[in-house]
Amino acid sequence: MTDLPIAPIDRIIRKSGAERVSNDARKDLAEILEERGKTIVQEAVKLAKHAGRKTIKTEDIELAVTRV
Amino acid sequence: MTDLPIAPIDRIIRKSGAERVSNDARKDLAEILEERGKTIVQEAVKLAKHAGRKTIKTEDIELAVTRV
Repeated sequence: MTDLPIAPIDRIIRKSGAERVSNDARKDLAEILEERGKTIVQEAVKLAKHAGRKTIKTEDIELAVTRV
Repeated sequence: MTDLPIAPIDRIIRKSGAERVSNDARKDLAEILEERGKTIVQEAVKLAKHAGRKTIKTEDIELAVTRV
């Protein structure tokens, strides 16, 4: 079970041109995006600390994405 | 505005060790994950077609992730 709910994942899937999707594929995509999110945030936390801040800002997220 | 709601994004952020996060950083992460989801699904659609299927399966998602 992921934190990301399946309904918005399903909207993303439909918008991306998929007509039929297995339930397992839906859940798999939700897990992949959730893991990617965690990895990005963990890196962003390091980058914010490195910059002497406790608050994660957009600049930390943007730099983190290029590094993980 | 993203399809992904902010509340579950926020849970992912908290679980990843962030104590304070700006609203813009939250929204940015939601947009990044949504774009990543779309890119993965677009590739999965191509891979399913290539395999002669109309239904996107987990194997399409898993292969797509390694290619985009």
